[in-house]
Amino acid sequence: MPEKRNSAQSLLDFTSEVFIKIGCSRKDALSVAQVLIAAELRDHASHGMIRVKEYYDLWKAGRVNATPDVRVVHETPSTAVVDGDRCFGMVAGMKSMQLAIEKARLTGTGWVATRNSNHFGIAGYYAMMALEHDMVGICITNANPLVAPTWSVSRYLGTNPLAVAVPALTEPPFVADFATTPIARGKLAVAEKKGEKVPFGFVQDSEGLPSDDPTILKRGGAMLTLGGDREHGSHKGYCMTAVIDIFSALFSGAPFGPFVPRRVAYLPVLDKKVGEGTGHFFGAMRIDAFRPAAEFKASMDEWIKTFRGATPSKGQERVIIPGEPEREAEKRYLAEGIKIVPAVVDDLKSIASELGIEFIIR
Amino acid sequence: MPEKRNSAQSLLDFTSEVFIKIGCSRKDALSVAQVLIAAELRDHASHGMIRVKEYYDLWKAGRVNATPDVRVVHETPSTAVVDGDRCFGMVAGMKSMQLAIEKARLTGTGWVATRNSNHFGIAGYYAMMALEHDMVGICITNANPLVAPTWSVSRYLGTNPLAVAVPALTEPPFVADFATTPIARGKLAVAEKKGEKVPFGFVQDSEGLPSDDPTILKRGGAMLTLGGDREHGSHKGYCMTAVIDIFSALFSGAPFGPFVPRRVAYLPVLDKKVGEGTGHFFGAMRIDAFRPAAEFKASMDEWIKTFRGATPSKGQERVIIPGEPEREAEKRYLAEGIKIVPAVVDDLKSIASELGIEFIIR
Repeated sequence: MPEKRNSAQSLLDFTSEVFIKIGCSRKDALSVAQVLIAAELRDHASHGMIRVKEYYDLWKAGRVNATPDVRVVHETPSTAVVDGDRCFGMVAGMKSMQLAIEKARLTGTGWVATRNSNHFGIAGYYAMMALEHDMVGICITNANPLVAPTWSVSRYLGTNPLAVAVPALTEPPFVADFATTPIARGKLAVAEKKGEKVPFGFVQDSEGLPSDDPTILKRGGAMLTLGGDREHGSHKGYCMTAVIDIFSALFSGAPFGPFVPRRVAYLPVLDKKVGEGTGHFFGAMRIDAFRPAAEFKASMDEWIKTFRGATPSKGQERVIIPGEPEREAEKRYLAEGIKIVPAVVDDLKSIASELGIEFIIR
Repeated sequence: MPEKRNSAQSLLDFTSEVFIKIGCSRKDALSVAQVLIAAELRDHASHGMIRVKEYYDLWKAGRVNATPDVRVVHETPSTAVVDGDRCFGMVAGMKSMQLAIEKARLTGTGWVATRNSNHFGIAGYYAMMALEHDMVGICITNANPLVAPTWSVSRYLGTNPLAVAVPALTEPPFVADFATTPIARGKLAVAEKKGEKVPFGFVQDSEGLPSDDPTILKRGGAMLTLGGDREHGSHKGYCMTAVIDIFSALFSGAPFGPFVPRRVAYLPVLDKKVGEGTGHFFGAMRIDAFRPAAEFKASMDEWIKTFRGATPSKGQERVIIPGEPEREAEKRYLAEGIKIVPAVVDDLKSIASELGIEFIIR
């Protein structure tokens, strides 16, 4: 392994250790670690090891419960509502998706709305849990309000991600996992650090006018919905983001839109409370609840081969199947190890020192 | 009523009569007419009376079955697959959504995949059928392949619409109903007729390069996915459109992507066949499968009031709740009557003459 890279196993061991040390059960600590390291492997470092400190700070601030009683508070044959008891989001996420899968096994589909949770990492992780059961997996969540509805300056929506995983037969699965805004917030931070402008279509200023300033959110600006402006369909991006907000919050009784809890410890807790914690929504659909599984998966192979065989645009080498870049990254990182940026290594080092655990990250 | 406007009832009567005359049952003819006139009332004329001739021509070409045996071919407690027997899409659409609602009543949610159907009008109609049952309604369909995946020139996807209807308590419902591309194809036709260019971000040329030419589809061009280009998130629009294609086609066994049947009679039937007819997907979710209905709907009122109260951007008067413009149009057209453009009136007149029915449209 080259210098300064970490095996996935060592990241998993260290991260589990951190969460065990602050009081999580071994199983819960492993859930948190698994989803964070899956994000690193899938090249979504923004949802990986960088979150350990954020979670740790939320725990120190008393805003996360390391020993939660995650429980089902309501159910029907195909639905359930789970209360996360202020757990780390992965703990509620794993349990909720498993429940959706069990319900799907019995009635064809399972749908679980979860409240009182926290940030749960990459939505794709939970959607993909359905694949080994020959099910389609769906996972959505709302998020910090930073996005303005079309024709508004109010930051009332999040970058609300949608993940859908569909099994195939001989092909790898189709896995779409994306924030429903043109960009993730991290892209603004990167441009700001470099002192660069961003393309128009990412953010607007405090009056709702076009802006190319990545720091504009600090002065009343907002992120835009997918589509960018009304002419290019931003109202469709608004609809999609709004639907995810409603499914994540209204079905479970978690706060919606502008009332979604800020998940970073340095932002104060809101006065107005319209629900409990962070909300998510999970779905599992048995493919043989519709067609014989082998037939469905063979069709999915054909879908994937057809789209992979599409003609690339001038200057492009290939047409991408959702999930391919992440799978390629995973293969590479498992072989070569995972780089962690120095600032994150430093954060992890202080946590290790505070908790008195061996520091094995480099 | 001012000159040259039609009451919704007269449009409904005339349209039902056309479809009865070509052999549909009274009930099926009414289904077709209801969905077409709902589109007129909701200001989606592109899915309204203009389609009567298109449907009539498809029937004359033997590509639609006016006396279908629409039947359930597979089911579980929460799912079903419906075969439309080459019916007019509304016939399968109504039956499929009703079945989803019945299943939701019994098991919390109902999900129906439909194949061997045809164009079914506005997706929102079916989603809204769930509202009176205190259910969330969902409806999607794939469509004529005119849209290229990100980084491709191949027209492998449709403008695949998504409709989601959510009931509220004292507020009118939330109804999102949108094609998942920046624009509908009709917008290109309008620009072409006027001899105008279109903004960049709607279409690309045959090499996949940006274009502002509304006629470019005739020379190998393609429509773009929501987001427009990769930098602005077109790959997310691609994911969304692809998910709708997979749900509409793979669950039901209908043709996917490039193999979706052309629904206009002057385009030839494809040689390669990967499934039956047009595919749709319907969902109904009982809100009290998650929370007490009154509580859910009161939260939805609060959601709607919050977003309606968002601060408008400079120069804008208000922030729109999905479904509001359509509801306002409906109120206006019910009071003032509906204008039908002369070319469509002429088409309808020849149909009336061919079928020997009284012509009451103006």
